[in-house]
Amino acid sequence: MREDARDAALRVNEERLWLRHAEMAKIGAIPGNGVNRAALSREDIAARKLLLSWAVQRSFTVSIDAIGNLFVRRAGSEANAAPVMTGSHMDSQPRGGRFDGIYGVLAGLEALEAMNEAGVTTRRPIEVVAWTNEEGGRFAPCTMGSMVFTGARPLADVLDVTDNEGIKLRDALAETLAATPLATKREFNSPVAGYIEAHIEQGPLLENAGKTVGVVTGIQGLRWFNIEVSGKTDHAGTTPLALRKDAMRDAVAIINALTELTDDPADVTRFTVGRMLVTPNSPNSVASHVLFSVDVRHPDPQTIKRLGEAVEPLARKAAKHCDVKVTPTLRDDPCVFDADVTNAVEAAAKGLELTHMRLSSGASHDAMYMARVCPTGMIFVPCEKGVSHNEAENATSADLAAGARVLTAALVELANR
Amino acid sequence: MREDARDAALRVNEERLWLRHAEMAKIGAIPGNGVNRAALSREDIAARKLLLSWAVQRSFTVSIDAIGNLFVRRAGSEANAAPVMTGSHMDSQPRGGRFDGIYGVLAGLEALEAMNEAGVTTRRPIEVVAWTNEEGGRFAPCTMGSMVFTGARPLADVLDVTDNEGIKLRDALAETLAATPLATKREFNSPVAGYIEAHIEQGPLLENAGKTVGVVTGIQGLRWFNIEVSGKTDHAGTTPLALRKDAMRDAVAIINALTELTDDPADVTRFTVGRMLVTPNSPNSVASHVLFSVDVRHPDPQTIKRLGEAVEPLARKAAKHCDVKVTPTLRDDPCVFDADVTNAVEAAAKGLELTHMRLSSGASHDAMYMARVCPTGMIFVPCEKGVSHNEAENATSADLAAGARVLTAALVELANR
Repeated sequence: MREDARDAALRVNEERLWLRHAEMAKIGAIPGNGVNRAALSREDIAARKLLLSWAVQRSFTVSIDAIGNLFVRRAGSEANAAPVMTGSHMDSQPRGGRFDGIYGVLAGLEALEAMNEAGVTTRRPIEVVAWTNEEGGRFAPCTMGSMVFTGARPLADVLDVTDNEGIKLRDALAETLAATPLATKREFNSPVAGYIEAHIEQGPLLENAGKTVGVVTGIQGLRWFNIEVSGKTDHAGTTPLALRKDAMRDAVAIINALTELTDDPADVTRFTVGRMLVTPNSPNSVASHVLFSVDVRHPDPQTIKRLGEAVEPLARKAAKHCDVKVTPTLRDDPCVFDADVTNAVEAAAKGLELTHMRLSSGASHDAMYMARVCPTGMIFVPCEKGVSHNEAENATSADLAAGARVLTAALVELANR
Repeated sequence: MREDARDAALRVNEERLWLRHAEMAKIGAIPGNGVNRAALSREDIAARKLLLSWAVQRSFTVSIDAIGNLFVRRAGSEANAAPVMTGSHMDSQPRGGRFDGIYGVLAGLEALEAMNEAGVTTRRPIEVVAWTNEEGGRFAPCTMGSMVFTGARPLADVLDVTDNEGIKLRDALAETLAATPLATKREFNSPVAGYIEAHIEQGPLLENAGKTVGVVTGIQGLRWFNIEVSGKTDHAGTTPLALRKDAMRDAVAIINALTELTDDPADVTRFTVGRMLVTPNSPNSVASHVLFSVDVRHPDPQTIKRLGEAVEPLARKAAKHCDVKVTPTLRDDPCVFDADVTNAVEAAAKGLELTHMRLSSGASHDAMYMARVCPTGMIFVPCEKGVSHNEAENATSADLAAGARVLTAALVELANR
């Protein structure tokens, strides 16, 4: 590990980082230690202002793009070099926690402050970004800020999206942009040399393994389907089973076949049937119609492709008595993070003598879009019992600081390449 | 077969029987050839009056008990001998058909008329009964008239039951009793020498086997359960399967175990999961809670007892990850009909050279209560595709007449014993 990377990492201030989480958690606080901070809301604006108040204390410069993504820059020795970026989001789920998203922003700011305190100069500038509307709880779709910044979708596509109260995104966005008049204007898709996002894991793997740092190798791919089984209702007492077209029986047969398909002794494959609707849904009537959801995820592109393609033929084969309609509803291919970035994160954890493990992200993140335009990686820290999107979301001050140290070291490393 | 039994059976008038079904079907007619004739309603009263108008043409005598069960009597040579009874019910499901119940009443009346026309005299009187409120569609519970007549439950228990409009059964009953002032009063549980009920099958066995007459050996027993599986909701993307308490996965495991338990190559056992409620019922959330119904039926007392007792331990064993609560919600032991009556029905079908088969009733009937107080049997005739409790319920004029002929011969046989 570079000496300046280590110096900066060791300047990460656990207490300052923790107190800033507490201060941010007051904005949109809800009972049970939770946070409701919708994108482009008054609370979002307050969070942005608080972030900027910390940034200006260090004379970091601030820019904002047309969708409200906010960039805090620590200059590098080569002023015009493409920056290395870090960050995450400040919006939350309606009943969200105090760490999801905001940790990545505050850890990034902490990294810049630690570099200042260590007197470290990097070749490239380093920027902390707060992406607009990652959660999608108020305006759909989610990961909107990184999606528009990277050009995956044009801004015009989302300006007329409305929230539940009929407010257009363009109006909420205009208010948000007006609230930070001193920020300079930033173009979409400006060059980026690399991106590392720190985040709570939102799963239990680190906690269960007793590791402090997750070296994230990518975001798993997913396939969603609705499977509709159509049979015929009959009297449950009078109709022999051989003569039935029992949609429940065939639905269970399909689930059994998919359970076998997705069986994985390594426990990497995720398979979930979370939703089921039964018609007529009466104890003494054979079900005429069953609709259920299928969610399959895997980090390996070939595996998720194979699993996804197997669902429909397998469902058709398993249903012995009824008609089956399989509708794909969502398809995300796996994102594999850049080996150099992943290795830099791993080397930082190792160099700082922190317990760590490689793992794949089960949930989506802004890093998914950044990985399309620059070398990208992520750092996970444990969250209590894997709970997130919930007021009970929790993490320890020590783990948050450890993740910020790894981030700091890895950023210094990448910003000097 | 006795010669007078054959003579009477051959006097059954297919056209008269069919036209009476058509005339009854006008009372409470609904679109799609259906009938809505709730118990103790204006339509029920109209049906009773129409039945009595036919009875008085033959000078049959009429009595009524305190719950409105209506008895039409053809005298026997021994005036004080306990009667042989036949009949069924005239009320229907809210969207019922033209044959369920009313066929047993009209076939009984047709039998009495045929005996008159053949000049047959039986030793015992023969009575046609129209049981009150068999369907239970307006006032719960179902099979109420036979339940109260046989003393299984006292009248006082049901008088304050209300319908959906708040009308008490006692008031609807008073109106119904007042509408037939000429009927003499009949005591509950008066002696009965035997009971045969004719009914459409409400299942597809006769039609599929190409048989005209079903010799019903009994009514199968049933066990109903609600099974509640309680686990924990989790993120479908981030939580490894080994760490989940997936209520859907355990519910499917329980259904698989029960499917295996009830597997029956002879296809006599009925097993139905007709109802399922999933919480939170979201595609990307592991289910925390699944409630489903279990309906198991079998005509053999030992078998239904064994199956019923196996459900709870098997469910507990199959659920590997979640808590399981099994609540029995209904329990009816099988009713096995009297061998003499069953043999008499079979002999009549054979003597009249009608194709026939023995079978067990999947649905409940008033015969279930009569079997507790006298030798009892049933005769089934085919109904189209096994459909009932539906406007589409259908049967052929020829099959209805064939069943009435078997009924007539069997009644003459029993009434001379």
